[in-house]
Amino acid sequence: MKIHAYAAKEKGSKLEPFEYDPGDLGANEVEIAVDYCGICHSDLSMLDNDWGMTQYPFVPGHEVVGKVSAVGSAVTHLKEGQAVGLGWTAHSCMTCRQCTGGDHNLCSDAVGTIVGRHGGFADKVRADAAWVFDLPDEMDATTAGPLFCGGITVFNPLVQNNIQPGSKVGVIGIGGLGHMALQFADKWGCEVTAFSTSQDKEDEARDLGADHFISTRDDGALEKLAGTLDLIIVTVNADLPWDAYINTLAPKGVLHLVGAAEKIEATVFPLIMAQRSISASPTGSPGTIKDMINFCTLHDIKPMIETFQMKDVNEALDHLRDGKPRYRIVLSRE
Amino acid sequence: MKIHAYAAKEKGSKLEPFEYDPGDLGANEVEIAVDYCGICHSDLSMLDNDWGMTQYPFVPGHEVVGKVSAVGSAVTHLKEGQAVGLGWTAHSCMTCRQCTGGDHNLCSDAVGTIVGRHGGFADKVRADAAWVFDLPDEMDATTAGPLFCGGITVFNPLVQNNIQPGSKVGVIGIGGLGHMALQFADKWGCEVTAFSTSQDKEDEARDLGADHFISTRDDGALEKLAGTLDLIIVTVNADLPWDAYINTLAPKGVLHLVGAAEKIEATVFPLIMAQRSISASPTGSPGTIKDMINFCTLHDIKPMIETFQMKDVNEALDHLRDGKPRYRIVLSRE
Repeated sequence: MKIHAYAAKEKGSKLEPFEYDPGDLGANEVEIAVDYCGICHSDLSMLDNDWGMTQYPFVPGHEVVGKVSAVGSAVTHLKEGQAVGLGWTAHSCMTCRQCTGGDHNLCSDAVGTIVGRHGGFADKVRADAAWVFDLPDEMDATTAGPLFCGGITVFNPLVQNNIQPGSKVGVIGIGGLGHMALQFADKWGCEVTAFSTSQDKEDEARDLGADHFISTRDDGALEKLAGTLDLIIVTVNADLPWDAYINTLAPKGVLHLVGAAEKIEATVFPLIMAQRSISASPTGSPGTIKDMINFCTLHDIKPMIETFQMKDVNEALDHLRDGKPRYRIVLSRE
Repeated sequence: MKIHAYAAKEKGSKLEPFEYDPGDLGANEVEIAVDYCGICHSDLSMLDNDWGMTQYPFVPGHEVVGKVSAVGSAVTHLKEGQAVGLGWTAHSCMTCRQCTGGDHNLCSDAVGTIVGRHGGFADKVRADAAWVFDLPDEMDATTAGPLFCGGITVFNPLVQNNIQPGSKVGVIGIGGLGHMALQFADKWGCEVTAFSTSQDKEDEARDLGADHFISTRDDGALEKLAGTLDLIIVTVNADLPWDAYINTLAPKGVLHLVGAAEKIEATVFPLIMAQRSISASPTGSPGTIKDMINFCTLHDIKPMIETFQMKDVNEALDHLRDGKPRYRIVLSRE
């Protein structure tokens, strides 16, 4: 059999139709017939080989929603025809300290869905069954894709930092990640502050769950928040005025990075005196992804998306490069 | 009445005998007749007004061991004649979110024993009863002073980071703080790695509880530890190769700062990929100080000290300025 995909032949090139033979299905693998696939900024980073680990021809796509089309001989919990989702990770060893401790996303042998593998801009994609998640009937398949990478990336900090309802949570950057973070933190029962350079996003940020909106171009806006926030989720890749944000943290507050700015520089004394910390995390574990799915179903949380036909993938990628999506793009094969 | 102390008249000057009238004893205060007082690096920093908050005449001393000589009218849990210890903090508000949550050391109204007050280089010193701790009979009063600032500063990170026995803990800097950190981490049941620029401290570090000793002048020493440590306690005030140390952290590992280097700069990607964090803390809460006292008594943990007569305080301060103590100085009034 052949899988019909869209691939870049070389760094940064346009995607073109591309067929490949995936070989035998592994005993623990699942094959998914793709219905929808989100586009994540990391698809662009990989397309451009920003991280030096891209193999060409390169098939992006790691926010997959579809139906199981085949299961490996050892797979017991997924069945053909079942609606599922797949995110950044397609494989982890399942035996190391991290995998056995429930932190599979930190497995040093974990393999990304688009790293040395072909991703979800295709009619089919494969992954280990442990990383393929049942999609509840109540979940809207057309919008769910971005939850499996972008969504879990900003849901996980609430879990990892043991954030309690009533806590004060800031979200820096109201975009593909941030607009989901606002919804999660709001439904988590927190008092939510959105930080954005775009004043015109205020109304939408409030609709998404922000109790407060800070236009970061306003002088003195951060100073007024001194010592108040329990968690700030940094979703942008920019070099920020780190000390000014750290100063907004309450005692024991955490500045949590999920956007990979190159460097962070912080003055140590304000960290020590109020026991503040800087943390960071990648995506989330299978257990946390399941919790996120349940949380989204319970609270009707959905990414806001723009839909493109998968055949128009190059237009969609250009749209993302231009920073235009509000807030996430999903490719549809339907 | 008069308290007989040693004070600096101005920034960086020699200490001279100094008398002052402490006024009426507050209802919640305790007066301690000083038997011993440790010298901490922060006494020097304050003497030199490094932090811009020193008031002169300045009486240093915030690692006090002595006996209660008077109690305020509202104090019920301490009695005259009782052996006690007093550390960095002399007062906190007892009503804010931090104080009511057991994080009194993070109270924004907390007052240091030597900040706008006169400290323990004296025959007597005063502090709020909440910050004066019963010294068990089993504890050696001659060596206990340094526990109340230096000790709690490196004990607290084990508590705050929820370190479990069996964890791998690194200690950077084997000096006044680090030599206590090694003992705490060892008796906490951890696998302990000492990092030092001084190869000649290896035997002593191992005696204090280090399972491994890394001479940081050795090329490639840090690379060999990649991905292994659960916690690193940074006790030095130096600018370190932060990324190299962060690279030694296991997934979810924490680089914890208690030495106030000016800035920390870190590459973000290695933080994100392994969910590593940078945390920091000042001293510890009354509850944690009590736990530390019990832990020291249980495991016979003692600071290694050099003793000077209090009248020789200027010699002792010079000795500390020269970086010579192994590892902590205690002034004795006996």
